Amino acid sequence: MNREAILHIPLSNYAYGLDETHVVFRLRTARNDIKSCILHYGDRSCRETPVIFTPLTMKIASSDDLFDYYEIELSSPYTRICYYFELSDGKTTCLYYSDEFHSETTGERSEYYQFPFNRREDIAQVPKWVNDAVVYNIFPDSFATGRRYIAKEGMRRVYRGNSTSSKNGGTICGIIDNLDYLTTLGINCIYLNPIFVAGEYHKYDLLDYFHIDPCFGTDDDFRKLVTECHKNHIRVIIDGVFNHCGWNFFAFDDVAKNGEKSAYKDWFYDLTFPVIRPDNMDDYPNYSCFGYERTMPKLNTSNPEVIHYFMKVCRYWLENFDIDGWRLDAANEIDNGFWRMFRKTAKSVKSDCLLIGEIWESAYPWLRGDQFDSSMNYDMRKNCRDFFASGRIDAAGFEDRVTKMIMRYPQQMLYAQLNVLDTHDVSRFLTLCEGNWMKFRLAVVFQMTFVGMPSIFYGDEQGIQGSVEDEYRQPMIWGNKSFFEFYRALINLRRSNVALRQGSLHTVCAEKGKYLYIFERQCETQSILVALNAGDRKEVISVLGGDEYNKCLFQEGVSGKEIGPWGFGVFENSNVKS
Amino acid sequence: MNREAILHIPLSNYAYGLDETHVVFRLRTARNDIKSCILHYGDRSCRETPVIFTPLTMKIASSDDLFDYYEIELSSPYTRICYYFELSDGKTTCLYYSDEFHSETTGERSEYYQFPFNRREDIAQVPKWVNDAVVYNIFPDSFATGRRYIAKEGMRRVYRGNSTSSKNGGTICGIIDNLDYLTTLGINCIYLNPIFVAGEYHKYDLLDYFHIDPCFGTDDDFRKLVTECHKNHIRVIIDGVFNHCGWNFFAFDDVAKNGEKSAYKDWFYDLTFPVIRPDNMDDYPNYSCFGYERTMPKLNTSNPEVIHYFMKVCRYWLENFDIDGWRLDAANEIDNGFWRMFRKTAKSVKSDCLLIGEIWESAYPWLRGDQFDSSMNYDMRKNCRDFFASGRIDAAGFEDRVTKMIMRYPQQMLYAQLNVLDTHDVSRFLTLCEGNWMKFRLAVVFQMTFVGMPSIFYGDEQGIQGSVEDEYRQPMIWGNKSFFEFYRALINLRRSNVALRQGSLHTVCAEKGKYLYIFERQCETQSILVALNAGDRKEVISVLGGDEYNKCLFQEGVSGKEIGPWGFGVFENSNVKS
Repeated sequence: MNREAILHIPLSNYAYGLDETHVVFRLRTARNDIKSCILHYGDRSCRETPVIFTPLTMKIASSDDLFDYYEIELSSPYTRICYYFELSDGKTTCLYYSDEFHSETTGERSEYYQFPFNRREDIAQVPKWVNDAVVYNIFPDSFATGRRYIAKEGMRRVYRGNSTSSKNGGTICGIIDNLDYLTTLGINCIYLNPIFVAGEYHKYDLLDYFHIDPCFGTDDDFRKLVTECHKNHIRVIIDGVFNHCGWNFFAFDDVAKNGEKSAYKDWFYDLTFPVIRPDNMDDYPNYSCFGYERTMPKLNTSNPEVIHYFMKVCRYWLENFDIDGWRLDAANEIDNGFWRMFRKTAKSVKSDCLLIGEIWESAYPWLRGDQFDSSMNYDMRKNCRDFFASGRIDAAGFEDRVTKMIMRYPQQMLYAQLNVLDTHDVSRFLTLCEGNWMKFRLAVVFQMTFVGMPSIFYGDEQGIQGSVEDEYRQPMIWGNKSFFEFYRALINLRRSNVALRQGSLHTVCAEKGKYLYIFERQCETQSILVALNAGDRKEVISVLGGDEYNKCLFQEGVSGKEIGPWGFGVFENSNVKS
Repeated sequence: MNREAILHIPLSNYAYGLDETHVVFRLRTARNDIKSCILHYGDRSCRETPVIFTPLTMKIASSDDLFDYYEIELSSPYTRICYYFELSDGKTTCLYYSDEFHSETTGERSEYYQFPFNRREDIAQVPKWVNDAVVYNIFPDSFATGRRYIAKEGMRRVYRGNSTSSKNGGTICGIIDNLDYLTTLGINCIYLNPIFVAGEYHKYDLLDYFHIDPCFGTDDDFRKLVTECHKNHIRVIIDGVFNHCGWNFFAFDDVAKNGEKSAYKDWFYDLTFPVIRPDNMDDYPNYSCFGYERTMPKLNTSNPEVIHYFMKVCRYWLENFDIDGWRLDAANEIDNGFWRMFRKTAKSVKSDCLLIGEIWESAYPWLRGDQFDSSMNYDMRKNCRDFFASGRIDAAGFEDRVTKMIMRYPQQMLYAQLNVLDTHDVSRFLTLCEGNWMKFRLAVVFQMTFVGMPSIFYGDEQGIQGSVEDEYRQPMIWGNKSFFEFYRALINLRRSNVALRQGSLHTVCAEKGKYLYIFERQCETQSILVALNAGDRKEVISVLGGDEYNKCLFQEGVSGKEIGPWGFGVFENSNVKS
């Protein structure tokens, strides 16, 4: 037994409450090392001594390159659990608790693993609607000025003495004019990059958190957008930039002008006086910034006044504009206390609003239930890039990545992940595919059949390409029917098959040196099989041919059990009764 | 290379800020598997691409049975760090980041490990004074009624219509009368088990959180105790029981009387109506309790009114009685939100007050800086039991346990651990030793020379024994000189040698099948070696004899380099200049 491979972490993604009566336990072992893994659980507060344990056999939920992940969802009669694992590799059997291997149980109940109390307040909960969400991410400046039209020309406005500008002329009204396009596409949630008053076209250098940027339109335009969206059953998520503001933000103006006498002198992180706004973008400013970007001074988000101010912002847009969630910029650079307060505030106004943190790495520290519901899943992009676009990893390597994406969070957080192939911050995925549509659409099939909310960056469904900022944020293309129809069909597929939205996921086929990846999505009422051939050779989907996955829902390049180069197929098991 | 053994967890005890300019990184490997481990770190926000990395060689900080723990304390010029590890076993070299092994670096900086921002608010901080604290834990009923005197007879009082009682007659004034005893012993902090009004002698079934139990004395007695303690440079920590109250607590009385019409109907966890107080202690109540103890109904600590009430309690004793900290009962059964608020409240009144959670298992989830400073380290007891008392583990097994205690928390939390050999909840350690003084004193030497605050349960220094509640909470024995003098000498040793309080710890000798355990405590100005022979055979301290550890500070059974059965020695390296 590879003992060094065994991992269990109490009160983590290895042991967490799903709800008040269901608890999930996981244990990691070396891959193919263990023959059986049994969870023994008991009531840690029971009156009997020794504790009476109940054994339950755990199953492998997923495997990556090196590890198997055993899992069990326990329907527990106890709120307070102590537990241990019994592991056997066929030759030896041992017990595992207190991060140690034992040959026997102990009389001291405190020495087992503890799940102290399945407190309802500490159970991570996400809005139910994320299960069914398909998100469309709009970069406002670049999307639309009117119906199927983008000006491709910027604007310049003066807002309280400061200049604000745009580049391509996109407006809020432009979005409203194209809602029929979005409903036809089939999405049911819009995530908008920043729309508040700010200097540059990207609007991350904020001037006013309480108004819509004049280049984009008016507050009323935005109110109308939300109303129209809601009429069309589309939710609206906006971008909250609270890590930093623009250097013409009123409070920064004040510290620049009044120095240490400013009422806002504690509003900024590591501010030194006198505050000097460097002329040259290569000069390092004498205050903390987003990156070293002098025009975006970093806010002191643990100052109670700053907290108060931004909680007002948080409430304002939820209460007065009925938005459905916040995407939170540079979330990993802001202190946890701010986010805990933000969650409390947001949920108190709208209990099912969604909070998505911009965190590119593993976001588990923020997904424990006290901060965000979701994070931007850039690993989705990375993994699709390496498998579908570049072919740098084979099917086994892709399974490894898929398992890592699945096992790093508690289950409930997984279904809320914002799965992106691209965003306003990275090259277009089609460009990573060097324009190869066959490769690109495989990634899209994967995105639309995977666990979590697919997020389409505007124009991906129109074949937009680009590797540098100006390119990947280029004006929307209106008119590429084939891409659009493909997306539309896939979104429809996802929205009309519950297993694709809510089912569990497990890998069916992922061989070393091969490029055929097959996985299943299963829920009580439906089983779906997805086969993706990321290679240039014909492969055989060996699980087809029986009477199970005999109903093809969607495919390209599949004929009988054969799947051609870059082919894909989605099959339903029609024996599962819904 | 045993790849399955490699473990690194970003933003955890494997990567944390010590202060704003120092960050600790750790990586776990299989024991004796790796020849070198290098941390490469860079500025994750730097303008250059690719990021320029700086290599630093990590060292093994500690080893347990299966693993080596590599560590480095980085004095970083960056607040935002990306990093990866370079591992070599002599044959192969690989890079480790994004939880994967790589042969090359990547151009995508987001794919390295991230330490997003060393936010000052998120750095775990503990009061500085814990470094020098030696704690004496008093169970008030059992300690003293007067000078060197305990009545051994209980009291009964009526408090607002409810009966409160004691068993052995200990009082607050009794403690005051014996402060000279405590100062002679050398302790500088008292931790008192509950003293507020409650029904039973142990006072965990609370009746009134704002007053001292009449069996123990008056509020003024307690104020005097704190004043006298502070005069003698002794800090005072009291016990906060917020998970549950007594079933005669006013709010529970109210729900029992008024049912769903009670203003306090949401003050209890899982209350069902009508509320019935079962006559028989074996009957399960229809409300949540501490354990299934019907007289201790569980509070709903996420109800804002309950939170408000207990924050008032928190402030009240800090503000009006100047206490120095709270030991928090059943801390792992209360929601995190309550504790975060409690920390904020307590620290806002007295920034260096100490918060110790009663958590027997690994307390890391509560020691991230947002909840407690410390926890009751029952693993100290367990490990000393298995090595010194029962001999169930050998020196190598003890090293394993020591490493686990050290590596499970960030460094700063380790020095704040409350290291207990026994408490009011477990058998006396001397009883675990079957009364064997030779074994017992080895454990005490270890406790007094280990990292963290030693906590002496009243009477341990008088040789009190006991395996059941009545015995281990028995009246204080006044008069056992030999035990007392031994403790006194050891406390003096700790308090007069900075390395024993603030030094790092590492194992020097811990062989399989042997019972000689030797470790070092080192700080800039002092190096100390501690040798403990937990076996019945003579051993040789091979590191002695040179010109390093040539100054013996404290010993029994050491002669030259020889150490007799159950002997111990504490040596100073007099070449280290202070």
